[in-house]
Amino acid sequence: MSEIKAKWIAADWGTTHMRAWAIGEEDRVLAFRESNEGMKDLQQNEFEPVLLRLIESWLDDTKVTTVMACGMVGAKQGWVETPYLKTPCVPLDNNQLTTANTHDKRIKVHLVPGVMQHHPADIMRGEETQIAGFINKNLDFNGVVCLPGTHAKWANIKEGQITSFKTFMTGELFGVISSHTLIRHSTSIKGWNQDSFEAGVLEGFNNPGSIASNLFSLRSESIVNDLNRDQARSTLSGLLLGVELNGAKNFWQGNNVTLIGSELLSNNYHQGLKILGGQSQLFSLETATLSGLSSAFRELNNS
Amino acid sequence: MSEIKAKWIAADWGTTHMRAWAIGEEDRVLAFRESNEGMKDLQQNEFEPVLLRLIESWLDDTKVTTVMACGMVGAKQGWVETPYLKTPCVPLDNNQLTTANTHDKRIKVHLVPGVMQHHPADIMRGEETQIAGFINKNLDFNGVVCLPGTHAKWANIKEGQITSFKTFMTGELFGVISSHTLIRHSTSIKGWNQDSFEAGVLEGFNNPGSIASNLFSLRSESIVNDLNRDQARSTLSGLLLGVELNGAKNFWQGNNVTLIGSELLSNNYHQGLKILGGQSQLFSLETATLSGLSSAFRELNNS
Repeated sequence: MSEIKAKWIAADWGTTHMRAWAIGEEDRVLAFRESNEGMKDLQQNEFEPVLLRLIESWLDDTKVTTVMACGMVGAKQGWVETPYLKTPCVPLDNNQLTTANTHDKRIKVHLVPGVMQHHPADIMRGEETQIAGFINKNLDFNGVVCLPGTHAKWANIKEGQITSFKTFMTGELFGVISSHTLIRHSTSIKGWNQDSFEAGVLEGFNNPGSIASNLFSLRSESIVNDLNRDQARSTLSGLLLGVELNGAKNFWQGNNVTLIGSELLSNNYHQGLKILGGQSQLFSLETATLSGLSSAFRELNNS
Repeated sequence: MSEIKAKWIAADWGTTHMRAWAIGEEDRVLAFRESNEGMKDLQQNEFEPVLLRLIESWLDDTKVTTVMACGMVGAKQGWVETPYLKTPCVPLDNNQLTTANTHDKRIKVHLVPGVMQHHPADIMRGEETQIAGFINKNLDFNGVVCLPGTHAKWANIKEGQITSFKTFMTGELFGVISSHTLIRHSTSIKGWNQDSFEAGVLEGFNNPGSIASNLFSLRSESIVNDLNRDQARSTLSGLLLGVELNGAKNFWQGNNVTLIGSELLSNNYHQGLKILGGQSQLFSLETATLSGLSSAFRELNNS
């Protein structure tokens, strides 16, 4: 039996994954657990049991433990729908938290709202918390952040607010193209070839209109010129990132971009930007998430 | 029982479909049948039974009937692998036909070769026959043909030869994006909105680098601004076509393009080109296929 008891619990509950942290005094992380029981696979009444299974051992049976959650758990198809803040706005507003109905008296679950933009229409759920956490750690920050992922977000930050943002579903495209099109016969699952990635970034950036042709070429090159599977996979990754970096030019050209995402993906973005003359540095995704949820927890208890 | 007896049989056997025509004197079409038993779903020993099931009633039991086939049936994973002609080349060379081994003595099956290009690598199987058929009917043609489809082909034709070509997997992308990504929640299966399609073509053509963002916008616009499902589907179609037309500029700008494909898709391409100031006209896909296979059949019997 675990003897870890949480002061409060942080949860990042996305479409495909759930991550939970037991937090102690002074925001110390006592324990971490994750599950692939993402929002998309759960009915409304399944969220509480899934949460409890992950965090129950961290609860003190004699009191109520607060759970602060962000992500798609707050979408219409999630546990309980939270409202959207509308840009320009602070990324996280504690007056807009939504409480989930729970049967277990030992927990109280607060969900943070997402952020939407009207024109052009755009939405985020989860990234606003990471942006809030990053701003907490960089109070005077004005500039551009990019959150690589299934749906990568580029956001302009000014005086603590998200002024505008733009989502690219590059990660999701990579997934369906490499697993559901004829290219799956030519790509590897894991391998990497740095030269192919870099050539892909340049070609995608310079000729975004040819993307549907460059994708087919991965198959043709494997048949005609023996392109190997690692090369094909890395070229695919580079091509799609290059096209995104073309479309996101207004964000990164002339700016030093802060990348907040998994190390692997953030490194790809960092290298892609570097090839094209862009500047960026990485900021820890976990730090951003926990700092965001922590500030929400603190303000909740001060108010 | 059918009393139709074929002089010879034409077959267009692709990845997902098989189409067969009973041909009489003077290339008259006596009957047509189709099946969704495409190459991708068949083992090597299943091709002959599938073919026979479709065409058996057209056979004269007292003689051997020739079947002329084109398409992915000649791929490595198909019935029997046929070689590729290499560009620049005539689209169809009767000295390169491959004969399939058949158990039934009433049929003799000839497969036409595909066409490949070395640099940049590209391949086609089936479209070369349609190009040959189109050239048969337009002997002095020099210019550009486009064959819309799952893998659209743009080809330069000069003095009866394919000098170069470029494949765009736009159709396959449309399929996986509308059925396997989050956009499926926002698009209809069939509906159409012409204004949305046209706006999509312009946006895709003008901002190809933003394609991964414009795709995500279909979801956001449906949530934030109530974009309806027909609008979303038509915008998706327009966006992907617009990106392709950007990448295929060198083919169509300043040229009158001949479109050889299904009427529905060819019409989309015709309209897309028109919006962007391009010129095109349609040529019947069936006429092209049958004329191509017919010329192969005639030469086979003259040699």
